[in-house]
Amino acid sequence: MSLIIAEAALEIVPKEIMHHRSVINYAQKRGKNPREVLLDRSYHHDAIIHSNLDSIWKRGRPDMVHFALLEALSTPLFLRHMLKVYVHTINNKIIFVSDNLRLPKSYFRFEGLMMNLFKDNVIKNDSNDVLLEIQDNITFEHLVKKVVKPNKLIGLSSRGIQSTAENVVTENIKKSYHCAFVIGGFPKGHFSESISKLFNHLYSIGEVKLEAHIVISRILYESEKVLLSY
Amino acid sequence: MSLIIAEAALEIVPKEIMHHRSVINYAQKRGKNPREVLLDRSYHHDAIIHSNLDSIWKRGRPDMVHFALLEALSTPLFLRHMLKVYVHTINNKIIFVSDNLRLPKSYFRFEGLMMNLFKDNVIKNDSNDVLLEIQDNITFEHLVKKVVKPNKLIGLSSRGIQSTAENVVTENIKKSYHCAFVIGGFPKGHFSESISKLFNHLYSIGEVKLEAHIVISRILYESEKVLLSY
Repeated sequence: MSLIIAEAALEIVPKEIMHHRSVINYAQKRGKNPREVLLDRSYHHDAIIHSNLDSIWKRGRPDMVHFALLEALSTPLFLRHMLKVYVHTINNKIIFVSDNLRLPKSYFRFEGLMMNLFKDNVIKNDSNDVLLEIQDNITFEHLVKKVVKPNKLIGLSSRGIQSTAENVVTENIKKSYHCAFVIGGFPKGHFSESISKLFNHLYSIGEVKLEAHIVISRILYESEKVLLSY
Repeated sequence: MSLIIAEAALEIVPKEIMHHRSVINYAQKRGKNPREVLLDRSYHHDAIIHSNLDSIWKRGRPDMVHFALLEALSTPLFLRHMLKVYVHTINNKIIFVSDNLRLPKSYFRFEGLMMNLFKDNVIKNDSNDVLLEIQDNITFEHLVKKVVKPNKLIGLSSRGIQSTAENVVTENIKKSYHCAFVIGGFPKGHFSESISKLFNHLYSIGEVKLEAHIVISRILYESEKVLLSY
């Protein structure tokens, strides 16, 4: 099975706001160029809200992406190489996550890793295996149709049909059948039309709005029950 | 029900290593005194391993505690005030978490909150409600027997009896019956004897060793199924 974190709020500071004081100060403190650091609403809120950037409510939350990824990469399904994970960013970059990646829990280390990834496009380990790779200008549609190629694409959103993680999984997951789940990697708003039009199903798995990392943990846990047959 | 994160690797830099170069540099960069910043293995690894501190493998992982807390505080059970959360630290401090706390997902903001908590012993919101409170010199035993007072105390550890989250919960959780689950807030090693001797049961819920945040998410999700009766 696959998990796609879509329109993820993970990016380098865009050039439109690289001259904003909050960005310059932040980069200087880290000994970096403004175009090397991650856009982060905790530090660059002012720069973001006074900019002309598109969909500003979907920008600058690398902490959310960190949580969502850690949730997925700590599961037995991922550790047993039964789950592929992709990050599609708000700027149509795709991050390919290797089965062997052990993502740092420390945000400081995660930030360093992502800055290196955006700079070098690839992260390798000491044995020269690729751990992370980023490719530019790949739309979500291209990712789904040409790379992931699932039998079913299932979106999860508070706008979906009301269900439970257990029902979504038992109705859709089967062995030897490739389901890809899609979760928004942004704090507010909904999937863009270009993404949601591709879903075979769109479900909501909570009566209250759930954080992306909680949705991920529940879907993967229920999938594990089916795929590892407890 | 209650959740206790025990022997959590969350503390201010201890005075034994406050003069270490890595600690001084780190505190200076933040404009803080070394005795105001959190001990963090990502920055103070050298200072920790060359120190005479007790149980060094259980120290300096505030990132782990952040994840574990966020996992619990994002659940419907917590949001509906049906879950009490306590953090017992490696130094026998207890952090009381109010039902109204919205924990920041940004590590930078979490770190700031914890530094303020260790300094002022209490965090209040604008309406003067207590969000977080810390008390010193309370043992885990005192917390369990005098504060939490559960009907059953259940430890979760890779050393426990092999089970599943679903079985642990269905065998133990009932409405109008107070179960407290205990999870280690440290990266390596096992519960101290002074803690594990108090457990009514000790379970392991994974065939592979699971991260604390994954154990929390599964136990709380299964508990929610019982307590909210889906």
